[in-house]
Amino acid sequence: MTTNSVGPVYTQFFTFAEEEPFPLESGETLQPVTLAYETYGALNADRSNAILICHALSGGAHAAGELDGDPTRLGWWEETIGPGKAFDTDRFFVICSNVIGSCYGSTGPASINPATGKPYGLNFPVVTIGDMVRAQVKLIDHLGIERLLCVAGGSMGGMQVLEWAAHHPQRLRAAIPIATTAHHSPMLIAFSEVGRQAIYADPAWNHGAYYDTAQKPDAGLAVARMVGHITYLSEESMHLKFGRRLQGHEKYGYEFETEFEVESYLKYNGHKFTQRFDANSYLYVTKAMDYFDLTQPTGSLAAAFADSAHVKFLVISFTSDWLYPSYHSKQLVSALTAAGVDVTYLDVKSSWGHDAFLLEVETMTNLLSSFLDRLVREERVAAPSGYMPRPRPASRNHTVLPRTQLADNLA
Amino acid sequence: MTTNSVGPVYTQFFTFAEEEPFPLESGETLQPVTLAYETYGALNADRSNAILICHALSGGAHAAGELDGDPTRLGWWEETIGPGKAFDTDRFFVICSNVIGSCYGSTGPASINPATGKPYGLNFPVVTIGDMVRAQVKLIDHLGIERLLCVAGGSMGGMQVLEWAAHHPQRLRAAIPIATTAHHSPMLIAFSEVGRQAIYADPAWNHGAYYDTAQKPDAGLAVARMVGHITYLSEESMHLKFGRRLQGHEKYGYEFETEFEVESYLKYNGHKFTQRFDANSYLYVTKAMDYFDLTQPTGSLAAAFADSAHVKFLVISFTSDWLYPSYHSKQLVSALTAAGVDVTYLDVKSSWGHDAFLLEVETMTNLLSSFLDRLVREERVAAPSGYMPRPRPASRNHTVLPRTQLADNLA
Repeated sequence: MTTNSVGPVYTQFFTFAEEEPFPLESGETLQPVTLAYETYGALNADRSNAILICHALSGGAHAAGELDGDPTRLGWWEETIGPGKAFDTDRFFVICSNVIGSCYGSTGPASINPATGKPYGLNFPVVTIGDMVRAQVKLIDHLGIERLLCVAGGSMGGMQVLEWAAHHPQRLRAAIPIATTAHHSPMLIAFSEVGRQAIYADPAWNHGAYYDTAQKPDAGLAVARMVGHITYLSEESMHLKFGRRLQGHEKYGYEFETEFEVESYLKYNGHKFTQRFDANSYLYVTKAMDYFDLTQPTGSLAAAFADSAHVKFLVISFTSDWLYPSYHSKQLVSALTAAGVDVTYLDVKSSWGHDAFLLEVETMTNLLSSFLDRLVREERVAAPSGYMPRPRPASRNHTVLPRTQLADNLA
Repeated sequence: MTTNSVGPVYTQFFTFAEEEPFPLESGETLQPVTLAYETYGALNADRSNAILICHALSGGAHAAGELDGDPTRLGWWEETIGPGKAFDTDRFFVICSNVIGSCYGSTGPASINPATGKPYGLNFPVVTIGDMVRAQVKLIDHLGIERLLCVAGGSMGGMQVLEWAAHHPQRLRAAIPIATTAHHSPMLIAFSEVGRQAIYADPAWNHGAYYDTAQKPDAGLAVARMVGHITYLSEESMHLKFGRRLQGHEKYGYEFETEFEVESYLKYNGHKFTQRFDANSYLYVTKAMDYFDLTQPTGSLAAAFADSAHVKFLVISFTSDWLYPSYHSKQLVSALTAAGVDVTYLDVKSSWGHDAFLLEVETMTNLLSSFLDRLVREERVAAPSGYMPRPRPASRNHTVLPRTQLADNLA
């Protein structure tokens, strides 16, 4: 077993009560709705120690531990969730659920459309970050939790955190949005759209109706992922990881085979992604991100947090993240401050670009642990029964995965 | 006629003497080789007033004037080349030629392979920036010009400028590399490779053999161009141009049609590009850019300019250009300074990203004119016969094209 792992975990499934169709922002409804989720640690007596973790674009409910007891199938935030880690499962009851529209067990375009008995494909309704979060609210109701101690997540996970804080403020005490934005910029929309266009351009996509066909739009999805991967890195991290080094060559081959290491990296990750992700889900989830805009309908971001003054914020950005540049977080902090919110902000110096929220483990652990310690103290959160504080592991004892392995887990 | 235009222009063609195959850096040869080129203005008596303009990735020889007398077919650097403009065709003999590997009249993958009587496709040899420039040297020989007054260009055009200065220093007096780099960074290679992968992923590409088929790899080429277009803009210019505005909609459509203006822009430009550019040329020209690395073989950029101490440099970068960030130019300036070169450097404040070299007309005109005035004075360059200095037009009299139109011309 990995050191400080939560150990074997098993994904659970919650299907909403059948009598009520789930309403979506678009005006459409969805029924049935199933959420895949995992939990780590134990609820305390007054159910005040629950933390919800929200995943990014291509992540899922499996955030920590060894899936189905397989030590090679670690969670996407393994370094950050576990006994004695930042989200300390000795003290907290940690929940992570897969968003609707995705392809890791929650209802999405690959699910069976009850009206036809076949996969939805493009008949799946467009969902929003707001819809994803309202589905999570139903899960939290189902788990009998009135108020979450905290909601945390990076990238698209951070958008969900902001959505929770803005639209369900009574259901949480604290919010930790990391490497994210309150509204997708036109550049982010542009990168999303290029990814979608790469999928549309693949004849095997077939307007989303490929689930019964021999060929899937893997080529298009791989290109979409390659574009994404560039945006998760920084120019500096690319210099550090790859430079201009050739892959398995001494000198230029003067051909169109993969030659540079960075080309090999992109191609490998693009194709690997097609083995684990559904192209239609890529369309739906990126669309949800593009639609996200907490400044609407008033035009004021501060107004979005008018009822959130009691929510304590820890906002984290990374200096080399050019996908969600620090100024997005700074605008958020300004708005939160204007709304009278207790907000702690750190712009972490890092070379790792957007990936930093998965890679800067030690810094993240320090930040998150201090913030959560303060929360536990101020909100008088009791530990679950049988809790024995353990000495925090010195950073040299951390089981730090190789950076490349972590980066490939990017959700 | 457009104000201050060079007027009707006609592309010319120069085919290398048949007896000698043209040697390439790869060790392959090419024969026959034709270069498409245009000239504007007149050579002076001692042939000392010639300026070579080098184009970028998707540009061609048509840099100024009305192609075939058609006033709608203006050159890609129309604002910068013409009577009284920065490259003043009253004073200078301006040359622009299409690079080998491209698809605007010079020999490239769509040309007929004499060995088969059919288009080369992927049998066209891989060419480098060095090869492109050695072909230009032959054109300059053909035009009877011993020494160019100046070589100038932006983006890939700037790489050619640096190649001229480093490897043919005796053939020029001055060099103006703009918004460029002395070696493609891994991030640039990554963006190139994603574009290529988008083309490879298109079944109509057919390993480059599509010239005789009904369908061309337009879908893949369009995606490649969309990726490129994002990199030519800046986050700020995207905010200014598009923001989060919807195209022809009042509110979200909750569908996968094009909704945001930025999506519409990318899609339009991606598809428009397929009507004017060849997918195989996109592969060859981007590959040439990726290979470009003046630090080789010594590892020292200064060493590349060891014989260039007499070449006067004007180096220009733009603050919001994240494709060829200013630090690339600063590294170049350091190396040139170490090599004892006379170098003037400006990092122009601009919101327009990489596109700025086509859009910041007034600033560029001031910079280029001052530098060229100094060159004329110091190098005692005579005007061509019949030259009458005209008052420099006040900037309000410039015929400034709408920014979007200029951006779409991006070479």
